[in-house]
Amino acid sequence: MLSRDGDGSQGSGGDPGHSELVHSYERVDDLQRSGLVIIQNPARFRFSVDAVLLSEFVSAREGDRVIDLGTGTGVIPLLVWARRRPAKITGVEIMADMADMASRSVRLNNLEDHISIVHDDLRSAPARFGAESFDVVTANPPYMKAGTGSLPGAHHTGEPEARHELTCTLDDVVRAAAALLRSKGKLAMVHRPARLVDIVCAMRANHLEPRRARLVQSRANSSPIMVLVEAVKNVKPDLAMLPTLAIYGDDGQHTEEMMRIYTQ
Amino acid sequence: MLSRDGDGSQGSGGDPGHSELVHSYERVDDLQRSGLVIIQNPARFRFSVDAVLLSEFVSAREGDRVIDLGTGTGVIPLLVWARRRPAKITGVEIMADMADMASRSVRLNNLEDHISIVHDDLRSAPARFGAESFDVVTANPPYMKAGTGSLPGAHHTGEPEARHELTCTLDDVVRAAAALLRSKGKLAMVHRPARLVDIVCAMRANHLEPRRARLVQSRANSSPIMVLVEAVKNVKPDLAMLPTLAIYGDDGQHTEEMMRIYTQ
Repeated sequence: MLSRDGDGSQGSGGDPGHSELVHSYERVDDLQRSGLVIIQNPARFRFSVDAVLLSEFVSAREGDRVIDLGTGTGVIPLLVWARRRPAKITGVEIMADMADMASRSVRLNNLEDHISIVHDDLRSAPARFGAESFDVVTANPPYMKAGTGSLPGAHHTGEPEARHELTCTLDDVVRAAAALLRSKGKLAMVHRPARLVDIVCAMRANHLEPRRARLVQSRANSSPIMVLVEAVKNVKPDLAMLPTLAIYGDDGQHTEEMMRIYTQ
Repeated sequence: MLSRDGDGSQGSGGDPGHSELVHSYERVDDLQRSGLVIIQNPARFRFSVDAVLLSEFVSAREGDRVIDLGTGTGVIPLLVWARRRPAKITGVEIMADMADMASRSVRLNNLEDHISIVHDDLRSAPARFGAESFDVVTANPPYMKAGTGSLPGAHHTGEPEARHELTCTLDDVVRAAAALLRSKGKLAMVHRPARLVDIVCAMRANHLEPRRARLVQSRANSSPIMVLVEAVKNVKPDLAMLPTLAIYGDDGQHTEEMMRIYTQ
């Protein structure tokens, strides 16, 4: 299974075959999909199940132009490319060292023709790429408002910018997405359920109508820990709520659907 | 268990002891709670599991002033009174014959001191009862917009007003609730998940912040069929999503939590 925050490491940092692309303090993790790998720094932000679920949830199709806002390690472009083979994926990342690491992951996978990592502020993306220039936007934005504490039980490392709304707010992400998307284009986002009202109201205020949503729970009887929302630009309201996804079954093992999401 | 739409009837229509309050074409169903009964007309709208779930979900407390907007048979006032013993519950119903039937149910239970049924348009309620005159508002409004069809698989009888937004829209209900509630008062609503965005955006636009919500599914793997939302007047955003409720288990029987909701 994938290496995730809090999971056992399967890294191969320092693999001599990658020496020109991988720093000594980094490691290379197997994405278990199409032979893809990803460079991560164990001391800093590492991708988690959120990215896996978003890449499965988003309605990207072959040939689509996709942009990932706040791409971090570039995990979402890699996973979306592996699953959907869109024409082109752009990842925008404001932190220079993260953007550099994501770029090196793209080169490590020889995907330079399909995925571009851009070091920029996502708020500048509409001016940089042009209005209505994408079919799909993905975003796994910071979950917490600036000035709020860590989530209970969270044991994350480094990267306050990836956890808190220091460099962009939820409204910034939704507004940028609305500008970047063509009419009928789609914004898919993963976030905390506590922000669900903020998310859907920001979407609607920007002519992005939430049309598919799904809650994610650790177990059948536990409170939701994530929400996936996909909005479509310039369409009428009609929300389809998907069955709530449980990650683990009563036996403590991944549920059948979670296994399917990891392996299909 | 309770008699519900589609369940086997346990009615006792024509019980000679009730002859002065129950018409010959009506029946009296046992609410299985505090010895309460309810008059229903089998050929018309009958309450369903929605009302039971809302009465369990709402945060009404002893001593509260509660108003139920669009009360129909009066089932929500009866169930909320049985569970919470608020000081006073008012039910507002626009259809004269439904309001009359609900009033007779109140008398049949000797609850005239606790529950009042008022035949009126809920949009007139703030003017009639005064602004900020209630602690809690409940609403099980019509689910479908005027002009839309029946839900797939639905086999409801009569009462288009109770199914479609003919006499009031979702916005009407939320606006009336916002006017009726004191600051920090609560609006609890049950509705279809397809309207979730409409609900939470209407609430927020009226200074009612959604603070608790819960999806309800028939089974663990089926799509949500209902959403319960409780908003608080004049508070900051911070939504608590509760674990999704499954009504039936894999064995086809009510889940433990559903049994608890019916019996506690």
